Amino acid sequence: MTLRVGVIGVGMIGRDHIRRLSAVLSGVEVVAVSDVDAERARTVAAGVPARVLATGEELIADPGVDAVVVCSWGETHERYVLAALAAGKPVFCEKPLAPTEGACRRILAAETAAGRRLVQVGFMRRYDPGYRALRAAVRGGSIGEPLLMHCAHRNAGVPAWYVGESMITDTAVHEIDMVRWMFGEEIAAATVLVPRRSRNGGGLRDPLVLLLETAGGILVDVEVSVNIRYGYDIRGEVVCEDGTASLGEPSPVRVRRAGLAGDPVPADWRERFARAYDVELQEWVDAVRGDGPLGPSVWDGYAAAVVADAGLAALRSGNRVPVSLIDRPALYAD
Amino acid sequence: MTLRVGVIGVGMIGRDHIRRLSAVLSGVEVVAVSDVDAERARTVAAGVPARVLATGEELIADPGVDAVVVCSWGETHERYVLAALAAGKPVFCEKPLAPTEGACRRILAAETAAGRRLVQVGFMRRYDPGYRALRAAVRGGSIGEPLLMHCAHRNAGVPAWYVGESMITDTAVHEIDMVRWMFGEEIAAATVLVPRRSRNGGGLRDPLVLLLETAGGILVDVEVSVNIRYGYDIRGEVVCEDGTASLGEPSPVRVRRAGLAGDPVPADWRERFARAYDVELQEWVDAVRGDGPLGPSVWDGYAAAVVADAGLAALRSGNRVPVSLIDRPALYAD
Amino acid sequence: MTLRVGVIGVGMIGRDHIRRLSAVLSGVEVVAVSDVDAERARTVAAGVPARVLATGEELIADPGVDAVVVCSWGETHERYVLAALAAGKPVFCEKPLAPTEGACRRILAAETAAGRRLVQVGFMRRYDPGYRALRAAVRGGSIGEPLLMHCAHRNAGVPAWYVGESMITDTAVHEIDMVRWMFGEEIAAATVLVPRRSRNGGGLRDPLVLLLETAGGILVDVEVSVNIRYGYDIRGEVVCEDGTASLGEPSPVRVRRAGLAGDPVPADWRERFARAYDVELQEWVDAVRGDGPLGPSVWDGYAAAVVADAGLAALRSGNRVPVSLIDRPALYAD
Amino acid sequence: MTLRVGVIGVGMIGRDHIRRLSAVLSGVEVVAVSDVDAERARTVAAGVPARVLATGEELIADPGVDAVVVCSWGETHERYVLAALAAGKPVFCEKPLAPTEGACRRILAAETAAGRRLVQVGFMRRYDPGYRALRAAVRGGSIGEPLLMHCAHRNAGVPAWYVGESMITDTAVHEIDMVRWMFGEEIAAATVLVPRRSRNGGGLRDPLVLLLETAGGILVDVEVSVNIRYGYDIRGEVVCEDGTASLGEPSPVRVRRAGLAGDPVPADWRERFARAYDVELQEWVDAVRGDGPLGPSVWDGYAAAVVADAGLAALRSGNRVPVSLIDRPALYAD
Repeated sequence: MTLRVGVIGVGMIGRDHIRRLSAVLSGVEVVAVSDVDAERARTVAAGVPARVLATGEELIADPGVDAVVVCSWGETHERYVLAALAAGKPVFCEKPLAPTEGACRRILAAETAAGRRLVQVGFMRRYDPGYRALRAAVRGGSIGEPLLMHCAHRNAGVPAWYVGESMITDTAVHEIDMVRWMFGEEIAAATVLVPRRSRNGGGLRDPLVLLLETAGGILVDVEVSVNIRYGYDIRGEVVCEDGTASLGEPSPVRVRRAGLAGDPVPADWRERFARAYDVELQEWVDAVRGDGPLGPSVWDGYAAAVVADAGLAALRSGNRVPVSLIDRPALYAD
Repeated sequence: MTLRVGVIGVGMIGRDHIRRLSAVLSGVEVVAVSDVDAERARTVAAGVPARVLATGEELIADPGVDAVVVCSWGETHERYVLAALAAGKPVFCEKPLAPTEGACRRILAAETAAGRRLVQVGFMRRYDPGYRALRAAVRGGSIGEPLLMHCAHRNAGVPAWYVGESMITDTAVHEIDMVRWMFGEEIAAATVLVPRRSRNGGGLRDPLVLLLETAGGILVDVEVSVNIRYGYDIRGEVVCEDGTASLGEPSPVRVRRAGLAGDPVPADWRERFARAYDVELQEWVDAVRGDGPLGPSVWDGYAAAVVADAGLAALRSGNRVPVSLIDRPALYAD
Repeated sequence: MTLRVGVIGVGMIGRDHIRRLSAVLSGVEVVAVSDVDAERARTVAAGVPARVLATGEELIADPGVDAVVVCSWGETHERYVLAALAAGKPVFCEKPLAPTEGACRRILAAETAAGRRLVQVGFMRRYDPGYRALRAAVRGGSIGEPLLMHCAHRNAGVPAWYVGESMITDTAVHEIDMVRWMFGEEIAAATVLVPRRSRNGGGLRDPLVLLLETAGGILVDVEVSVNIRYGYDIRGEVVCEDGTASLGEPSPVRVRRAGLAGDPVPADWRERFARAYDVELQEWVDAVRGDGPLGPSVWDGYAAAVVADAGLAALRSGNRVPVSLIDRPALYAD
Repeated sequence: MTLRVGVIGVGMIGRDHIRRLSAVLSGVEVVAVSDVDAERARTVAAGVPARVLATGEELIADPGVDAVVVCSWGETHERYVLAALAAGKPVFCEKPLAPTEGACRRILAAETAAGRRLVQVGFMRRYDPGYRALRAAVRGGSIGEPLLMHCAHRNAGVPAWYVGESMITDTAVHEIDMVRWMFGEEIAAATVLVPRRSRNGGGLRDPLVLLLETAGGILVDVEVSVNIRYGYDIRGEVVCEDGTASLGEPSPVRVRRAGLAGDPVPADWRERFARAYDVELQEWVDAVRGDGPLGPSVWDGYAAAVVADAGLAALRSGNRVPVSLIDRPALYAD
């Protein structure tokens, strides 16, 4: 009973997931792909091999497809996820669930109406061994209650399409979801601080500091630096009442040369989170096949979108912006 | 030509400096002490041995005293420093220079009128090998211009006299001075963020996050946690355009036992900054004997007091509070 | 074209490989198992599910089995590997290839006669990300030629069947293979040093230091401590002409509490090398399916056995024992 | 009662000690110097200032000299130390105490005859904060009895006068003394292993591994690499029954740039052991002034010389060479 998956969108992340589903993970195969660029779809499909379907909707409807992975551009997520819900097929949707609060709420309504969870959103940090160990340490009870968290999210550089809003919606959104998961609390307000700009940032206000406050009063500061050249660096330290726990900075090798003992820094997110992506999709496959719970939900995608909107409003206004969520449907109770 | 020093105030820090000046440093001896508690003064003096003088003023006036170290309570600093200035004697004054802006300005006026520097303020972090290496790395040019700094100032616990304002005026004041020295810029504004409280903090709003903005737009966040139990921990990372530099976490030994590879954390500031205090006072002795420049000035003490006042106002109001300094006298030009 | 694997031997390592092949890896399924303990075989098979075959030979002969994984006790390896060679089926044989030089040479003769490689030996360190990064750093050319290597192989404790010879043949044999692979040189001599014994070691001479000399004169010291209580710790530093490279000590989380900043140490080899086992078997599956080269060969298994024998002779005699290998068949040319 | 010290020999280490005694330490001044190079002696003396005496013997005899520091070449140590003993003056003698066992025994006889300790030998590692913390951890009882120690002693390069024997007598001699002090046991045998040579080593057999066995069976391996280019690196890990303790690798700053998180490595022993030298001489001054015990004794200097001789014999012969010491005089009882 190998799970037969169809992948919508074969850009960079789509191709990476196809490789993972085809050649790394257990119990799953990629049987179909679609893409707005039909030529690209054919090339990628030939390498699997898999069938090419003309549209995402056709792929979702195909009886040979058991479950769907959505890797297309954010604007198209709503329509594919709604189609999958309508077809009653499990769907893994890359983050963001959808780029607007409205779209997220329409998905939420559809899944709630269906009365069972079919959608998982691609927040892969929840599967990173470092974050999992950090969460276990914070919840282990040996260092007291959490009070603060310090985060840094640093990229060596960004792609051409990256704009000012992306610092919140594409970059810091990972911390937004991680914080909700780390502490099991919703985020209640967001503020953005803007220091002097890096000469590497082009027109961007880079770096930024995003401040998040949870419903329980935990304060999180997130440095977002997206052109820092030296590498991709993700940090997190949770400050508790009696101690702290922080992400390790694991390096497989240490080289001593030329006056320096040096640990290599990952080049990008693919290197840093390779393992997290593997675990994320394996656990999704296992869940769809009946062997375990689904991961981040439509509610998580909705909440992240609302907090990101608050972050954008805070960036524009310079003010602290409260976050307002609708009531949490019972389907998403903890 | 051993420098003959008189020490006013023989509380904990005073006794520690007496030990240092008597038994650790070169070219200096302690010849006289005074304290409001005459009995305590006699006991301490007997151990040196040194003479006891009835008041700080008598000690300053004594012809056998070449230079003065002021370790009494902050409220008395102004009168002893002014007396030393009047007597034309070099004086090392523990931080704070004085507890109010007004007192600092009176000292500033007196020294400016005298036309030469006689006062050094005890901001010992400028002498810590870690901070010196950090500053050299930031200024070395290999990682671009500084944009942000993340700091943490953690105490395992605090003494009985410690109150809410102490978190700014006694604790974070070290970061206030350090930031001015690190970047060679004045601080332009302060904000205080208050997360949920630690159960260890008694009535204190503990922890706090103090945000400092320099005149050039560098943003500094300072976590102040003063009852965190696990130890005394001082952190600093300067985020620059092309890389970062951070304080090392030096540990003399690493012990592997019972499932853990562990590095000991210092118990308190005396342990963490023992070397900084030694270097600070040795360089002061050398400077007074003509062999090098004086360290932190009355201007530095004044600026730190004004920024700390802004921090207190920010703590009370919840607002961002701009810092306003008088014009810098030529005597304190860089 | 999923690879259908039969597993001989369902003890601890056999069950772990069955889990891996069934639930973690791509392109493979477990279709059959056998074990001397028929009841145990049935229980394990039911959980997969897979068929139970009465003997390893039957399993190898079964037309539904494409490839064989041998996890039975070392004494039985020869007969199963020879049977697989005779059947022309790929076989993954857990280390050791066989417990005697004679047995290894019989396998070598059989595979050489067959004229193509069908056997891979389970030296999983070659697949560990740390060792791979270490080897890349040593071979990268930036630190000169290798001269020395320091290793430690530490176990918290050992199972009941473990005897004195196991320190060489079960424990240090991993370093024996790793050194050959790291430097691309055969080992020319072995010496064993015996310090005072640990009270934890029962009757064992524990710890030991095994010295290995490569054909090119690289000297390797291997500390073998097998009852050191604190955890499972694997270290390696290669000393080159201009610098060194060492295994990192990756920890996913660092916890500061009670006066200590601590990194957890793995409890055992399963935790430390979990990833290496996954990569090892995935690459084997890929190779058998035609997509990549096979890993450690019968020659590697033979050479490791001969060096281990030299280590045992050195342990018994206290002398340096040269290693003598037969000529390397062309089938195993680099 | 400042201690008035005369320094014999104003080469590199002599000048460094003069600076230390004059400008860093408490309770001591340099009043006289001598050197075989009279011009050099005058130049150095002028900078202190101090008197120049024509010979070491005159310096020792001078009534204005309370205590003597011997920094001349090793061959001359015996005569100056014997003269100081004859004069009843305390003497700090840089290592080695004397270059031959015979010379050491003559000094031992002289001091034993005098019936009280006047001599301290310059083994500065006993004063290094790292080694002190390591020794405290090993003796603290939480990790069981020591069984093994791994050491590395690495120099970026060596001076022109350095020859093959220097690797034992100048370099590894520090580990020889450190091991005796660490474990409170004499060394019973030495062996030297010679791997392939570094191209950086000129004619030297570089690196070497020196094996030391203590009387109680603790086995110590010491890597000696003296042209390893990347920096000066001193390592030590003591392997005990239940855990290990190792020297930290303290770095004051960590810089992230260009794909690497890097900690600077010290350039040379002056940088690495600056603090140890300060503590060593301060404690000597304190001891001579009556405030504390003397450090490494003539017995320590003698034992180190005998072990170094065994190391040289082992290097020449390739064999394990037992160490034979005379009975320890009561004067040097622990």
